[in-house]
Amino acid sequence: MNFSSKLLEDAVAEFAKLPGVGQKTALRLVLHLLNRDKDEVQRFSDSVSKLRNQIQFCSICHNIADQPVCMICSSHKRDHSLVCVVEDTRDVMAIENTNQYNGVYHVLGGLISPMDGIGPADLEVDSLVERLKDNHVKEVIFALSATMEGDTTIFYLHKKLKQFNINISTIARGIAFGGELEYVDEITLGRSIVTRVPYENSLSG
Amino acid sequence: MNFSSKLLEDAVAEFAKLPGVGQKTALRLVLHLLNRDKDEVQRFSDSVSKLRNQIQFCSICHNIADQPVCMICSSHKRDHSLVCVVEDTRDVMAIENTNQYNGVYHVLGGLISPMDGIGPADLEVDSLVERLKDNHVKEVIFALSATMEGDTTIFYLHKKLKQFNINISTIARGIAFGGELEYVDEITLGRSIVTRVPYENSLSG
Repeated sequence: MNFSSKLLEDAVAEFAKLPGVGQKTALRLVLHLLNRDKDEVQRFSDSVSKLRNQIQFCSICHNIADQPVCMICSSHKRDHSLVCVVEDTRDVMAIENTNQYNGVYHVLGGLISPMDGIGPADLEVDSLVERLKDNHVKEVIFALSATMEGDTTIFYLHKKLKQFNINISTIARGIAFGGELEYVDEITLGRSIVTRVPYENSLSG
Repeated sequence: MNFSSKLLEDAVAEFAKLPGVGQKTALRLVLHLLNRDKDEVQRFSDSVSKLRNQIQFCSICHNIADQPVCMICSSHKRDHSLVCVVEDTRDVMAIENTNQYNGVYHVLGGLISPMDGIGPADLEVDSLVERLKDNHVKEVIFALSATMEGDTTIFYLHKKLKQFNINISTIARGIAFGGELEYVDEITLGRSIVTRVPYENSLSG
């Protein structure tokens, strides 16, 4: 592209580095910002810079937080004997939105993926093991994606956590509520027959 | 969404104000920035703030520029007797990319659109009239979108510019190069027959 301004070119180049944003989209976003009030744009710019410089990670669960210990970990209303292991903060948000879970979390910060060069050392595995050592935790729930990376991570962590006298579970896999049987893949359908549950436990809500 | 951090929530809210960016996309972009180096994120933030605070508009053609007069308007290699009237800086970039135009531009900053409350006073119309008064300009080319707003703007400007002894033209409308006839809409096809050109003038490149 032929930019008439270096400032414009720089801003477009920075936006185009974002995932899923190409040159044309970047230009559209930048021109939109140019049309907005200076104050608004400054607020946008500040929010990004503040986020990166001031953000903290909870020293207990490693979720994104504004304080050294996050709101969930410092809450007395949560069940601290129940730890849900998730990949990242998005999963915490997704589970919180269900209003079905009252325990605490442990954010791994990723999944084991040899293809991407991510091993156990890159994840918050040691701190999870440390957390379990004081015998407060009664159950660990793995809420990881049902992918090869998720299964590998569960397999690895399960071996690590076997030494403790705690229950280890994974979130249920099966057909989604509202899902039509004929469109469900064979593996999911097959496993959902093998791991069938008593009728009384199967009702939603 | 349940955010674990106010900083995160603020940044997501700011990104979600961008056109075409919803909450989920905003969260994805913000988490991406969180994973990047602090320096890189600062560069992103600075580029936005610098753009908005330091950008200038060329005092002659009103295109985005880094100097008081843009590179095109200050170039001696351009034909200053030929002025191409466009809606915004994206159109200047599009025409520059064709390498087919050697004149200068006039950026209106929008199109007349009563539905959006945009009238001639909101556009750079007076400055265009001023530019034509010193008799330097021989031709004005309207390169505006072939929409109702574009046509309204051309109609209005044409009435304003009639008083000057200059040629007024619009870019050619017709079927696109590579376009298949059966998919061309009726209005375009009909007009392209009425405004047919001698074979010698029709060759591309």
